Amino acid sequence: MAVYTDVSPAELEAFLAGYDMGTLTSFHGIAEGVENSNFLVQTTTGSYILTLYEKRVRREDLPFFIGLMRHLAGRGLSCPEPVARRSGEVLAELAGRPAAMVTFLPGVSVRRPTAEHCAELGRGLAQLHLAGADFAMRRTNNLSVSGWRPLFNAADGQADTVAPGLGETIATELAALEQSWPKGLPEGVIHADLFPDNAFFLDDKLSGIIDFYFACTDYLAYDVAVCLNAWCFEPDGAYNITKGRALLAGYEAVRALSDAEKAALPRLARGAALRFLLTRLVDWLNVPEGALVKPKDPLEYLKKLRFHRAVDNAQDYGLAA
Amino acid sequence: MAVYTDVSPAELEAFLAGYDMGTLTSFHGIAEGVENSNFLVQTTTGSYILTLYEKRVRREDLPFFIGLMRHLAGRGLSCPEPVARRSGEVLAELAGRPAAMVTFLPGVSVRRPTAEHCAELGRGLAQLHLAGADFAMRRTNNLSVSGWRPLFNAADGQADTVAPGLGETIATELAALEQSWPKGLPEGVIHADLFPDNAFFLDDKLSGIIDFYFACTDYLAYDVAVCLNAWCFEPDGAYNITKGRALLAGYEAVRALSDAEKAALPRLARGAALRFLLTRLVDWLNVPEGALVKPKDPLEYLKKLRFHRAVDNAQDYGLAA
Repeated sequence: MAVYTDVSPAELEAFLAGYDMGTLTSFHGIAEGVENSNFLVQTTTGSYILTLYEKRVRREDLPFFIGLMRHLAGRGLSCPEPVARRSGEVLAELAGRPAAMVTFLPGVSVRRPTAEHCAELGRGLAQLHLAGADFAMRRTNNLSVSGWRPLFNAADGQADTVAPGLGETIATELAALEQSWPKGLPEGVIHADLFPDNAFFLDDKLSGIIDFYFACTDYLAYDVAVCLNAWCFEPDGAYNITKGRALLAGYEAVRALSDAEKAALPRLARGAALRFLLTRLVDWLNVPEGALVKPKDPLEYLKKLRFHRAVDNAQDYGLAA
Repeated sequence: MAVYTDVSPAELEAFLAGYDMGTLTSFHGIAEGVENSNFLVQTTTGSYILTLYEKRVRREDLPFFIGLMRHLAGRGLSCPEPVARRSGEVLAELAGRPAAMVTFLPGVSVRRPTAEHCAELGRGLAQLHLAGADFAMRRTNNLSVSGWRPLFNAADGQADTVAPGLGETIATELAALEQSWPKGLPEGVIHADLFPDNAFFLDDKLSGIIDFYFACTDYLAYDVAVCLNAWCFEPDGAYNITKGRALLAGYEAVRALSDAEKAALPRLARGAALRFLLTRLVDWLNVPEGALVKPKDPLEYLKKLRFHRAVDNAQDYGLAA
């Protein structure tokens, strides 16, 4: 749940005067989102999302995120489009926080994606990758392989309090992936966090992709690996190859994976599982007293990691031979 | 901040199938509200608010609240209108909670009302009282004079930890009001909690009244007294007679106060101040460890109570002689 910063209607109206977007007709804080404060703002010209960037988002990254949404929307991708102020600026300040206004996207996320949703998502992900190909800015992925050891250190020997032997499993996996992380794969803009709650559907068609605040420059196939983890496992931990096949076929219908990318997919999938295992572990060990937000279970990703370690080649994920 | 209950998109879609209101296009939890969980639901037919009633609302009161909104909307008052299911029922169950869907009202609340807002509010309050005159159901006001001593007892001798002498002040005031509470004033449906965050404005005109979950049957003039407390004091605690005059004139333009109501107004205003002082005191003394919601300051109402004790007659509030 997220409205960390209070904004008064009068403050908002003063802020809106900097935009050419009509007068305010409605204003509600939105409960979703964990990192930032979000408000649904309706004016005489339409619906918008106002985001106040809280402390977990680094201010120096904001031009990348905002510029990327603008670029992708300009290339026809259905994603939130930043609204420029009369001054031409997109980033502004409200209630002491950096703030931006983006267009509101209709659509509803799904919690139990079907194979059809996975196919749609795969196509959308590839479209995102193509649309981002000529985006000029770069942002390092701090949560890729070189970022995992610091995360593991942050868990500070407490992993075994979550599950016996977890520390050892992570240490082994981390060392293996540091040694063997793929090199030289096609790079570009990746979403890096395209979970089902960041994809909207209307009539089972993908209607939009949101939340670009982990986006960065990294292997495109790593983004595919993140999505296989996030979309193609069942609640009981089983990999659903029908969904994997649909996601990968959807992706390849728009952008073909190279042989090197295909060969790297199992390792990228292990890495993606380790990344979410580690961030969830750190969050799990650092829940503030009395917090309302229940942290996500790190062990979900331990199961996924174990699955990927047994995968020989990308066909096991459902990739067409 | 309030979304206490998680509702999945699939659960919501199944729930919506019981209504004749189109297909779901958007769904967001709303951060405002303290008692219940609220969601903004958009469908192909319009925008709605879905409310899940949490434990602080008694289930046996729901037919009164829902019936009242339906009645008032039917009389032309701009308030949320409950949407009936195909079955004809308005109350249903979702995620294990009683749930109802109401129409979405555009408008924005104000935090620093002007005299113009107060005039609008006074008119709206009187319209509410007239529209409610033929509403058949009754609900006792549990937070009127007979409910205050139990609240005081719940503070259990701890009032002085909030301000020295507060316990004695409340005890004296409570005894005085129990002795002298007005009798036989005109009764009817009152909102009982019409604070600025429960009134919406568009272009400085009242566009809607929301949150009927304290509504009950009580003296109409008591509702006026609640609004004088909630709308006509400045942040520094001073009573703004210009705002009071505007509110009372607005009210009387629609419904004239009787001589008995006018004479009772200072005492009703003292009672209203004591009611909010007591509920805020109890909340203040019972903040759960680590709570995100900061309780409202009870002492704001101690100041207001002191003001009312010095008031001789309703002209001091700005009532036309």
